[in-house]
Amino acid sequence: MDDMVDLQSMGKRARQASRQLAQLPSTVKDRALETIADNLHNRQDELLRANGKDITTGQNTGLPDNILGRLLLDSTKLESIADDIRRIAALPDPTGENYDIRTLPNGLEISRRRTPLGVIGVIYESRPNVTIDISALCLKSGNAAILRGGKEAINSNKALAAVVRDSIFSAGIPRDAVQFIESPDRTLVSKMLKLSGYIDLMIPRGGAELVRHVAEEATMPAVTGGIGVCHTYVDRTANEDMAVEIAYNAKTSSPYVCNALDTLLIHTDVAPTLLPKIASRLGASNVTLNCDSRALSILGLNSSLIKAATDLDWGHEYLSLTAAIKIVDSLDDALDHINTYGSGHTDVIVTEDHTSATRFLDIVDSSVVMVNASSRFNDGAQFGLGAEVAISTNKTHARGPMGLQELTSYKWIVVGEGQVRN
Amino acid sequence: MDDMVDLQSMGKRARQASRQLAQLPSTVKDRALETIADNLHNRQDELLRANGKDITTGQNTGLPDNILGRLLLDSTKLESIADDIRRIAALPDPTGENYDIRTLPNGLEISRRRTPLGVIGVIYESRPNVTIDISALCLKSGNAAILRGGKEAINSNKALAAVVRDSIFSAGIPRDAVQFIESPDRTLVSKMLKLSGYIDLMIPRGGAELVRHVAEEATMPAVTGGIGVCHTYVDRTANEDMAVEIAYNAKTSSPYVCNALDTLLIHTDVAPTLLPKIASRLGASNVTLNCDSRALSILGLNSSLIKAATDLDWGHEYLSLTAAIKIVDSLDDALDHINTYGSGHTDVIVTEDHTSATRFLDIVDSSVVMVNASSRFNDGAQFGLGAEVAISTNKTHARGPMGLQELTSYKWIVVGEGQVRN
Repeated sequence: MDDMVDLQSMGKRARQASRQLAQLPSTVKDRALETIADNLHNRQDELLRANGKDITTGQNTGLPDNILGRLLLDSTKLESIADDIRRIAALPDPTGENYDIRTLPNGLEISRRRTPLGVIGVIYESRPNVTIDISALCLKSGNAAILRGGKEAINSNKALAAVVRDSIFSAGIPRDAVQFIESPDRTLVSKMLKLSGYIDLMIPRGGAELVRHVAEEATMPAVTGGIGVCHTYVDRTANEDMAVEIAYNAKTSSPYVCNALDTLLIHTDVAPTLLPKIASRLGASNVTLNCDSRALSILGLNSSLIKAATDLDWGHEYLSLTAAIKIVDSLDDALDHINTYGSGHTDVIVTEDHTSATRFLDIVDSSVVMVNASSRFNDGAQFGLGAEVAISTNKTHARGPMGLQELTSYKWIVVGEGQVRN
Repeated sequence: MDDMVDLQSMGKRARQASRQLAQLPSTVKDRALETIADNLHNRQDELLRANGKDITTGQNTGLPDNILGRLLLDSTKLESIADDIRRIAALPDPTGENYDIRTLPNGLEISRRRTPLGVIGVIYESRPNVTIDISALCLKSGNAAILRGGKEAINSNKALAAVVRDSIFSAGIPRDAVQFIESPDRTLVSKMLKLSGYIDLMIPRGGAELVRHVAEEATMPAVTGGIGVCHTYVDRTANEDMAVEIAYNAKTSSPYVCNALDTLLIHTDVAPTLLPKIASRLGASNVTLNCDSRALSILGLNSSLIKAATDLDWGHEYLSLTAAIKIVDSLDDALDHINTYGSGHTDVIVTEDHTSATRFLDIVDSSVVMVNASSRFNDGAQFGLGAEVAISTNKTHARGPMGLQELTSYKWIVVGEGQVRN
């Protein structure tokens, strides 16, 4: 069968399933999620067998250990995924709520009602837990999903998708509400990005290359997110201990994620005392600091962790135990740097000065702007959204952490008594 | 100069201006709008002279009268445009509001703050008033704008854009907050649609062909709207007089717009008495009815306004004094028809039955769904939004009538006291 025809047919079936899904009460959707969680336990043997094939293939093809680690499923991981699904089931249903309710002067009653988006496409890389996680988030928000996972996890993903489809079917939801593209054919990604008639929102979950490819090629709206060049600016009036702890946490608590610190900007007045403290705290955790010339003149080159920055360091997302350090003369210089080199993800000011804090919050044009807190807090669960689909750096639709509500649309409801327009 | 370079430079200047604009207080933006309104009066001679050139060219190139009518400016039209601008100035500023304000268990104070989107691109056809109208809506919402108008109105648009740019400059806003692409080169539209680095949202204002072209080619988010295949379904329990008036108003009050009636679906039980009344009322206003076989057997072919429908009538947007008529056996048949042939714009049920009304509102997946009202009410001003940029049939970002708030984004504001993440 021609792949394009196949995808079209998947799209049609997803659209059909999404219409049924949109009409189901919360209880049915929640029961489906709980059944998925139960079956992750009940069908553990089959899941671990499928995962074992991927691990063997990965070892034979020389996948690096960190990728193999992400790929590996075991009973503890499966229980933890099941717990996550049960937590999603327990969240409030994001759809159905009427808001902006009002009566117009002509008596028409109007409101907006939150509805599912319809069909969500997801393209992701090697973590098989995404198959379960994103299925649960889409189902909870009343959306059908078409999933495309990475080839390294193909057997695991197929087995997990089968568990999802069987589970939801037994709870009264059509199997086609979640469909998984099984063919490893790479051209299918481009074809999927053309299915604007059947996919309402495309979500890439993976590295910067995948996110950019989807942003460029998708003919439907797509989430752009997960690329975080995060700045922390330490103002002249900062509490120095606080600045050290925020920089340390932002860089070291999880250096491989998008909300980790990349560039530390330090006001020149406090740099001579503060920078050595920060270098010492970060150095103890093996963080390499790529320093501009002024920072270098304060720290000296007497550690292998202190290096000279080049122009390529500004605006660079490290995803590793490295940060760039720049000394600035003023808040305005820091703002200029961030608006020039930032990616609109997460930027932080450490200050005791109310005017500086306010100016920073006003002027920095990023999805999350913070005063006196670690950039690592830019996260759906941390923000109390209950779950996270992505961290969007788009300005339309949703910005920052996307929870269940950000997977919804709305329609206008108008109820009259025969009103006509003059 | 190479056009691509030119557009890039316009984009950069728009981005720069948008940053300044985002920081301005409402009073400055409102004064700028009032200055535009004043200058439409003060510079009337220059505007009418420029418009006269377009009218002469249009007459010489044989533009149809209805296009010439839209193109024509006179002092009454200019005063009316000026009044619209003053009304926009008087609306509340949609930006700056903090909402979803809460304190997390760890003490972080978080909220969302409504912000401008940044830079809005607008591509429109022959009505020169759009140049003023859209500039005002963008400025009021703190957005810079890059405008591309139709070649028929090129002299009028240039003169109007000069008035806008001079007016905002005298009020303290950079001229480049509103830029107009003066070259008639048609390839510039495609190039504009590639400027995703500088344009945050693209809005096409014009016919279906323009809207589809923008949806397919734009690399940035784009509004899809203005294509309305609008259904009105008359249920078995409908009040017949109400049904006649709603159908009449929906078709005849402005037949050339997207929220006008296209297909009337009538329950078979009421069709024998109701359809002749509707045909008589619509016939008196010269509405042609393209009828399915059952409707035809009720009405007969004894008027030149009664015709046999073909399959092409279902899902057709007429934009004229024509409607399609189909008899259905049930609410479910009507729902199937609408979900098959509708464009997700505006669909109406006329019914006295609460269960039918609820089912219709639940199941029809359109930007506006109505009970017992004319589809013509799908309109920003009618909905009390104060102004209208477009009627979106997208599901992401904004759906239905887009007012000033739908031209905004938000950013998350987080204020802490040194919190770090575990």
